[in-house]
Amino acid sequence: MSTENKKENYKLKQNRYSKGKSNNSKQFTKGSYSSVRAAAFKSTDNSENIQKDKKSYRKKPNYRGNIKKNIQKPSVKIAFLGGLNEIGKNITLIECENDIVIIDCGMAFPDGDMLGVDLVIPDFSYVEQNYERIKGIILTHGHEDHIGGLPFLLSKVNVPIYGTPLTLGLVGNKLREHSLFNKTQLNEVHSGDTIKLGCMSIQFIHVNHSIPDAVAFAIHTPAGTVVHTGDFKIDCTPIRGEMIDLSSFAKIGDEGVLALLAESTNAERPGYTPTERKVSDSLDNLFRSAEHYRIIIATFASNVNRVQQIINCAEKYGRKVAFSGRSMVNYMEVAKKLGYLTIPENILIDLDMLDKYMPEQIVLVTTGSQGEPMSALSRMAYSDHRKVMVGEGDFIIISANPIPGNEKTVGNVVDELLKRGCKVVYESMYDVHVSGHACQEELKIIHRLVKPKYFIPVHGEQKHLRKHADLAEYLGMERKNIFIGDVGSVVEINENYIKELAPVQAGKVFVDGLGVGDVGSIVLRDRKHLGQDGLIIIVASLDVYDGHVISGPDIVSRGFVYVRESEGLLEDVKKLALSILEECAENNVHEWGLIKNRIKDDVSKLISQRTRRTPMILPILQEV
Amino acid sequence: MSTENKKENYKLKQNRYSKGKSNNSKQFTKGSYSSVRAAAFKSTDNSENIQKDKKSYRKKPNYRGNIKKNIQKPSVKIAFLGGLNEIGKNITLIECENDIVIIDCGMAFPDGDMLGVDLVIPDFSYVEQNYERIKGIILTHGHEDHIGGLPFLLSKVNVPIYGTPLTLGLVGNKLREHSLFNKTQLNEVHSGDTIKLGCMSIQFIHVNHSIPDAVAFAIHTPAGTVVHTGDFKIDCTPIRGEMIDLSSFAKIGDEGVLALLAESTNAERPGYTPTERKVSDSLDNLFRSAEHYRIIIATFASNVNRVQQIINCAEKYGRKVAFSGRSMVNYMEVAKKLGYLTIPENILIDLDMLDKYMPEQIVLVTTGSQGEPMSALSRMAYSDHRKVMVGEGDFIIISANPIPGNEKTVGNVVDELLKRGCKVVYESMYDVHVSGHACQEELKIIHRLVKPKYFIPVHGEQKHLRKHADLAEYLGMERKNIFIGDVGSVVEINENYIKELAPVQAGKVFVDGLGVGDVGSIVLRDRKHLGQDGLIIIVASLDVYDGHVISGPDIVSRGFVYVRESEGLLEDVKKLALSILEECAENNVHEWGLIKNRIKDDVSKLISQRTRRTPMILPILQEV
Repeated sequence: MSTENKKENYKLKQNRYSKGKSNNSKQFTKGSYSSVRAAAFKSTDNSENIQKDKKSYRKKPNYRGNIKKNIQKPSVKIAFLGGLNEIGKNITLIECENDIVIIDCGMAFPDGDMLGVDLVIPDFSYVEQNYERIKGIILTHGHEDHIGGLPFLLSKVNVPIYGTPLTLGLVGNKLREHSLFNKTQLNEVHSGDTIKLGCMSIQFIHVNHSIPDAVAFAIHTPAGTVVHTGDFKIDCTPIRGEMIDLSSFAKIGDEGVLALLAESTNAERPGYTPTERKVSDSLDNLFRSAEHYRIIIATFASNVNRVQQIINCAEKYGRKVAFSGRSMVNYMEVAKKLGYLTIPENILIDLDMLDKYMPEQIVLVTTGSQGEPMSALSRMAYSDHRKVMVGEGDFIIISANPIPGNEKTVGNVVDELLKRGCKVVYESMYDVHVSGHACQEELKIIHRLVKPKYFIPVHGEQKHLRKHADLAEYLGMERKNIFIGDVGSVVEINENYIKELAPVQAGKVFVDGLGVGDVGSIVLRDRKHLGQDGLIIIVASLDVYDGHVISGPDIVSRGFVYVRESEGLLEDVKKLALSILEECAENNVHEWGLIKNRIKDDVSKLISQRTRRTPMILPILQEV
Repeated sequence: MSTENKKENYKLKQNRYSKGKSNNSKQFTKGSYSSVRAAAFKSTDNSENIQKDKKSYRKKPNYRGNIKKNIQKPSVKIAFLGGLNEIGKNITLIECENDIVIIDCGMAFPDGDMLGVDLVIPDFSYVEQNYERIKGIILTHGHEDHIGGLPFLLSKVNVPIYGTPLTLGLVGNKLREHSLFNKTQLNEVHSGDTIKLGCMSIQFIHVNHSIPDAVAFAIHTPAGTVVHTGDFKIDCTPIRGEMIDLSSFAKIGDEGVLALLAESTNAERPGYTPTERKVSDSLDNLFRSAEHYRIIIATFASNVNRVQQIINCAEKYGRKVAFSGRSMVNYMEVAKKLGYLTIPENILIDLDMLDKYMPEQIVLVTTGSQGEPMSALSRMAYSDHRKVMVGEGDFIIISANPIPGNEKTVGNVVDELLKRGCKVVYESMYDVHVSGHACQEELKIIHRLVKPKYFIPVHGEQKHLRKHADLAEYLGMERKNIFIGDVGSVVEINENYIKELAPVQAGKVFVDGLGVGDVGSIVLRDRKHLGQDGLIIIVASLDVYDGHVISGPDIVSRGFVYVRESEGLLEDVKKLALSILEECAENNVHEWGLIKNRIKDDVSKLISQRTRRTPMILPILQEV
C-alpha cells in the first residue's frame, strides 16, 4: 500500500472515530480527552504542539565518521526506571536540554517470593525530583506492563499523557477506578502524527502487536533522533488496520538515528513470529471439529484482534458469543466503543442467557488463559464459577501460551478441566496462539532500517538483553556502541560517545491492598519466615516488682505443627520458657530484651533438635 | 545384536561387576546385598526364588475372544498409591491371590502451595494394613520419584527389596542416611532375570532411560501377565550398555499380555526422543568453541551417561574434571564403584585444586541444572559458593531442560550468570540435553509389541494420561479397555473384564524436617495466611475477678506492615481492642471465646477498611 493510500486510510479512520466523540475538546482542558490529531487537522491553536511531516527540522548528521568533531549538539540522557533485567514495569525517561519525556509507565506482577504483594510498580522518586522538567508521558500501547503504573505516578505528579485512542480508552478506565480521571490531561494522538514536547518532537509510528493501536516513537531531539520500538512485531497480514509502518522506520533511518531502543522479549527466538491471521485457520478448523460441543476460548482480554477472529468464527458457524471475566467484559466494552471490534447484530449474549441455547450455539470467550487462580476459567475448572458449569459437553481452547512462571498453574487448570471430561486444546501444535513480539529476523529488519549509531536493548531479562545485543553485534555494530543497562541506569549519548552516568534511585515498590510502598524487605522476610515455618508465641505476665511469672507462660502456635499431635513438645517449650523466666527473676535480670533473646535462642534450639524446623519464636511479656 | 550375543554380554557384565563384590552373600541375609542373579548362575539354595527362561509356566491365553468363558483364572488387582495425576511418588501394588508385590516407592517435590514442606511421600496406610501379604518391593530404577519414599516405608514395614545393582547402590546410600541399611534386605537382580515372589514371577527387562540400569517388569501372575514399563525410552545407540530389550517385550507380547502399564511423561510429544549420543556431538562442538574458557556443566547428578560423555570430551580436549555439589559427588562415587562410569587415570581433580590449573584445563560438573536455590550452580550464580567464583572466563552449559514449574528459577540463575559476564548455553537449540522418556512413536512401538488386552497409562498428570489413552485408542484399543486412574484407585482385571473397585486410603504425606505427616491442611492454610498477609497479635492481661484490663492490650505485628510507618493504625487497633475488652467487662461478658471473636472481627474490619488487607488476627488473653 502506498503512503498516499495509507494517509487516506488514516484520515478515514480518524473521521470514523471522531463520530463517536462529538464533544472532542479542541483545547487541552483537564478532565476530558483532547485530540491532538484532530487539532492537527483542524489547525487550531494547539498546532504549536504538533509538527506534521516537518522532515527537515534538523540536518542529517554524519554519525558514521569516528573523528572527534567539535560538539555542537547537546547530549541526550536516557534514564531507565524499569523494564531492564525484568519483564514488566517499563518506564524510560528521555532527557534533553532541560526537558524530560517519559515513555510508558508500567507495572509488573509479583514474583513468587513477593508474598502477599498485589503488584509491583517503579520507584518514582526520580520523576518526582524532576517534576518541573517533565513535558509529558507518551504511551506505546495499552498493556499493563506499559500503563499499569500510571495511576500511582499520577497521584504524585500531574503530567499530561499522550497516546493513541485505544490506549487512552484503557488508561481512562484505569484512572476512573483511582478517581484520577478528572485531574488528568489525556491527549489523543494517532500514529503518523508528530507532537512537540519541549525541545523534542515525537513521531508516533504504527506497529503491530497483540493489542491494537500500538506505536513506536521516533523522538527527534536537539541531540539527534532516538527511536523506541515499544512492543512490536512485523505482521504483513494483520486482522485489522495496517501492517507496521516500515516506511517510516526506513525514512527515519535514512535521515540518521542516534540511538535505537528496541524490545527484546523474543530476542532468544530465531525466525519470524507468525501472523495473527494464522490463528484464524486454526480456529476455523477447531470450530468445525467442535460440532455439538459448547466452545469456550480463553485468551488475553487485551487481544482485541484475537477476540475479533473468534467472533468472526462464531458468526460463520452460527454461534452466539458471551464474554466471561471482568477484564474481558471491560476491554471489549472499550474496544467496541472505540470501533476496534466489529460485532455483528444479535450475536452477543449475556452470560445469564447461556441456558437458553444449545451447547453448539455458543462460544464463551473468557479470561484465565494464564491459569490465574481467581480468573473465570480457573473458577470453571474448579467448579467455583457461579454461572458456568463445565463438563463433557465442553470444547475448551486455550488461545495463549503460558508466560514463563505460569506453566504449572496453566497445567493444573488443564488437568482439572480434563478430569471433568472437557476436551481441551492447549498445545502449541494447534496454532491457536501467536506471539505479539518480534523474533530475531524481525528485530534484524528494524535494526537494518533504523541504522542507529548506538543500540540499547530494552524490555527483557538479562538473557533477552544479551541475545539482542549479540544480534546487533552480528549485524555489524561495535560492542562499545551497545549498552546493556539495569533499572536505575542512566546513559548520556551524543554524536561522539555513549557513556554511563551515575545511576538514579530506582527499584521495585510493592502495592499490597491500599498500601503503596509500606511493604518492604523486612516485612517480606517475616512473611517468608512465617509462611515457611509458622510461629510460636510465648506470652507471660510478670510481676512488676520482682519479675516473677504471675500468669503463663502460654504457648500459641500457628502454621508450625498440628497442635493436638504435638502437645508434648509444646508442653516442653512451656516448661523451658518458665524456667528461663524464673531464673531471670532469681538473678535479678529485668532487661526484657535480654530475657526475650534468651527465650528465643533456647526455644529455637529445643525445637530444632526435636523437629529440624525453625519457626519464628515470638516472646511477649507483660508487666502487671 | 542377537539374543545369544546379548546373553553373553550380560554374563560378561555380571562377571565384571562381581569382581568388586567378593563378599556377595549367597543367602538372603539381612544387612547386606544378596545377589539373586549371582545365585541364579551358581544354582545355590536360592534358586527357588528364580525362574530363568522358564517360558511355559502358563499357557498362552486367548484374550482376543469376547465370549464369556468360565473364569478359571483368578483376577489381578492393581492399586495405585501414587504417580497418577501427578509427577512423582510413583508406587503401584500388584495383588494376586494372597500376594502383593510393590513396584517402586518414590517421593515428589512439594508444589508452591505446600509451604515449608521438604518433600512429599505416599500415604502408606494401605501397605501397612496388608503388611503380611507383601512379598517384596521391585524397583525400576534409581530416580528419587521411584525410590525416594523407601526410607519412610521401610521405617514402618520391613520388606525385601529387589533391584538392579546401580539402583540398589543408590538405595543403599539412602538407607544408610536413615540408619535403615542394616535392617533391610537388598536383593540384587540383573535385567534378563526372573524372580519369584509368592504366586508371581517377575521378569526384569532392560530399558533405556536417563539413569543406567533401568528396567521394565513383566509380572507373570496366575491371572495373566502384567507389563509395567517403568520410565523408559528407545535408544538404539546408548552411551553404555544395550539398547532397550525390545525382543523380550516382543516375546512377552506374543505370549499374551493381560495389561500394560506404561509411563506417560512424554505422551504429549509427537515423534521420537533423540538418542543420548546426540549430546556427544553438541558437547564436542561446545568444548571446541570454549577454547580458553573454563567449562562448567550443570546436569542431573543421576544422569551417569551424560557425565560419562562430559568426561570423554574432557579427555579429548585435555581438561581435568571436578565434581561440585553433594549429590553429584555421591552419585558419581556409587556409579564409579559399581562400574557404570569409566574415568581415565589422573583426570579427576578435587574442587580445592581448581586454582592449580588454567581455566582451559578444567571442566566442572555441577548440580543445579534446575536452578534449585541451594544447589552449587545457584550458589555460583549468586556469588555464594565457597570454592568457585564465576565470571567472564567461564563457559557454562546447562545440560538439562527445566522441569515444568522450574522455568523461572532456571531463568533467574541464567540471568545472574550472564550478569557476571559468563557465557551461558541454556537453549534447547544447542542439543545439550535429551529427554529420558519415550515420545509418542516410541510409546506406539511398545504398545504394538506388548499387545495388551487392557491398558493403564501411568506416571503423569491428567493431560499426560489422557494423551496416552488417546494414543492407545488411536492404535485400535477400545476405550472401555483403557483405565485412567487416580491416586488411591484400585482395578480388578481378568480375562473377561477390567473393573474399578472402591478406592483405598492414599494421598500426600508431607515431610517437614524430622516430622512426617504432622503438617496437614490446617497448618498449611495457616502458613499460607501468615505468608500472604502477616499477623497482628493483641495481648492483654485481664483481672481474674471482674475482667477489666490490667495490662495491655499490646499490639505486636509481623509481616503485616512496616511498623514505624503505621504507628497510627496500630494505635487505633490498640484503642479498639481496649474498648472491646472494657465493654465486655462492663457487660459481664467473660466468655473468652466470645471476647476473642469480637476482637478478631472488629479489628479485621478496621484493618480491611484502612488497608484492604487481611492479616491473621490473634488475640491472646491472660488472667491475673
